[in-house]
Amino acid sequence: MSWSSNEVHLASRPTGYPDAGTWSAVTVEVPEPGEGQFVVKVDHISLDPAMRGWLNDVRSYIPPVQIGEAMRAMCTGSVVASRHPDFAVGDAVAGTFGVVEYALSDGTGVTTIDLGVAAAPTWLGALGMTGMTAYFGLHDVGRIKAGETVLVSAAAGAVGSVVAQLAKAEGCRVIGIAGGPDKVAWLKEIGLDEAIDYKSENVLRRLREIAPKGIDVYFDNVGGDILDAALANLRRGARVVICGAVAGYNDETLAPGPKRYMSLLVFRATMTGFVVFDYEDRFPEAVAAISEMIADGRLVARETVIDGGVAAFPDALLGLYAGVNTGKLVLKV
Amino acid sequence: MSWSSNEVHLASRPTGYPDAGTWSAVTVEVPEPGEGQFVVKVDHISLDPAMRGWLNDVRSYIPPVQIGEAMRAMCTGSVVASRHPDFAVGDAVAGTFGVVEYALSDGTGVTTIDLGVAAAPTWLGALGMTGMTAYFGLHDVGRIKAGETVLVSAAAGAVGSVVAQLAKAEGCRVIGIAGGPDKVAWLKEIGLDEAIDYKSENVLRRLREIAPKGIDVYFDNVGGDILDAALANLRRGARVVICGAVAGYNDETLAPGPKRYMSLLVFRATMTGFVVFDYEDRFPEAVAAISEMIADGRLVARETVIDGGVAAFPDALLGLYAGVNTGKLVLKV
Repeated sequence: MSWSSNEVHLASRPTGYPDAGTWSAVTVEVPEPGEGQFVVKVDHISLDPAMRGWLNDVRSYIPPVQIGEAMRAMCTGSVVASRHPDFAVGDAVAGTFGVVEYALSDGTGVTTIDLGVAAAPTWLGALGMTGMTAYFGLHDVGRIKAGETVLVSAAAGAVGSVVAQLAKAEGCRVIGIAGGPDKVAWLKEIGLDEAIDYKSENVLRRLREIAPKGIDVYFDNVGGDILDAALANLRRGARVVICGAVAGYNDETLAPGPKRYMSLLVFRATMTGFVVFDYEDRFPEAVAAISEMIADGRLVARETVIDGGVAAFPDALLGLYAGVNTGKLVLKV
Repeated sequence: MSWSSNEVHLASRPTGYPDAGTWSAVTVEVPEPGEGQFVVKVDHISLDPAMRGWLNDVRSYIPPVQIGEAMRAMCTGSVVASRHPDFAVGDAVAGTFGVVEYALSDGTGVTTIDLGVAAAPTWLGALGMTGMTAYFGLHDVGRIKAGETVLVSAAAGAVGSVVAQLAKAEGCRVIGIAGGPDKVAWLKEIGLDEAIDYKSENVLRRLREIAPKGIDVYFDNVGGDILDAALANLRRGARVVICGAVAGYNDETLAPGPKRYMSLLVFRATMTGFVVFDYEDRFPEAVAAISEMIADGRLVARETVIDGGVAAFPDALLGLYAGVNTGKLVLKV
């Protein structure tokens, strides 16, 4: 027996936004698992801003996706056949299976997930790499303390919305930046102290008004002008956490850097990059903490689920960069 | 009795490089000291890249020099009249007296200096704010460790040349960047492992060759393209110390930021700004350490002394930005 898997493979490296030529639709026969292997039927696929970076043939924190390979993606799914001692048929799992319908796995990087704690999309969001990124970026890199003022960009997005709520739970004053009135309204609803609509407001000026003493921690998901506005409004000893720079991911040349970086000197501040995979050993700590917050209502895990199967992946990815989602963007297979 | 002091005052705020209209030559009568005061005859004036920033009317780590005031500058001199218990006539002192010949002081920020340890220009260089900047930037901000690879820009300059030698003394491999063959030759002479001439070499490519495993600590005095070249060649866990950005100080608009700042994420690196005045309590520690290194020959304190009096200040400052100096640039009064 084998499983026909419809998949999206990388056909050519894009310049700028990925387009039709970037991808190829391929059907692959996934064979019976060998000893120590199992087959997963993927049910949800995570869409992540970082995906654009994985398409570039450059040295980075992770090797690029190779041409002819299935697009890399984190997924949830269920085990449909197994010759692996740790994974049984019917187990719900999460792993980097790719934009595929079925995957053969040896268990590397795969974890079992408890759908009683939260539904599969949440295991790609607040309880997945998204939540891990928020948790370790805020606590370990940002070193937030109760009473501090925390600013987060893309605050209605996957990572940002978890960051904002974790910081609130820690006793911080939290300011979110998002695009459009709906997202801003949602940020108020989930308890942020202030929300700035970057599409209709001057972020630099608004920050000066609502945080006249400056920002202690800025969690940056976007780069660009918003990073500069934050740098201009730091407080002495501030920590800027570099999580992403979605504003520039699809640019054909390197986006401009933060022209106000000398604020780091003025404010004796620090700007630090991190990669969530470095904290893998401590993921259980974060999953436990966030699960508890979801259970007692302190954290709202929200996902935008697109129901289109793997064929919808190319458009869904463009939607992510256009900011269609509130919370985590997930593709249902 | 009084003292006629020729001085350089700020006449108007420059855009771009300071020019003739920026300064006014003024003669001030410095009166007899009152109770708790003393008069200093200035003998040497320090020229510092940061001076350009002090002319801008912006919020920074130090208030701007006001129009009509003597230009701020660190100086050495000797006490010629005193009614202050801690300062006696004949004492050699260092303080922020300004671009003046005589200054009335109440002792705030003034220290006595031992000309037996080193001549006055060195008390503005390796034993002055310059040396303090190098010492605390490298140890406290950069957290250098023996065996690490340290890169320093403007390495033949005042701060850079002390940074480079302190890092060598700590057991680091040290790469310096400077402009022109004479400076590069001098860097080799004082023991640097490698020296790159940014005027004739491609810094990014050369760094890749001579530090294929990357840079652990980059001490940045210049910003601009050299900062970007360093960011592209970091090692995992690197520390980038932001000391200055002389490349952009005289630009009429904000210079571009470091477009490769996302390297901080790739390399899990940190970029931190600092201001030397924050370490004032620990200056004696650094003075003792650097004095010992000068005495036993591990550190060469070099100064370029211009013998022109306060009237030569405007040209000397432009010379600093043109890089005329090797080591510390000092104006003799």
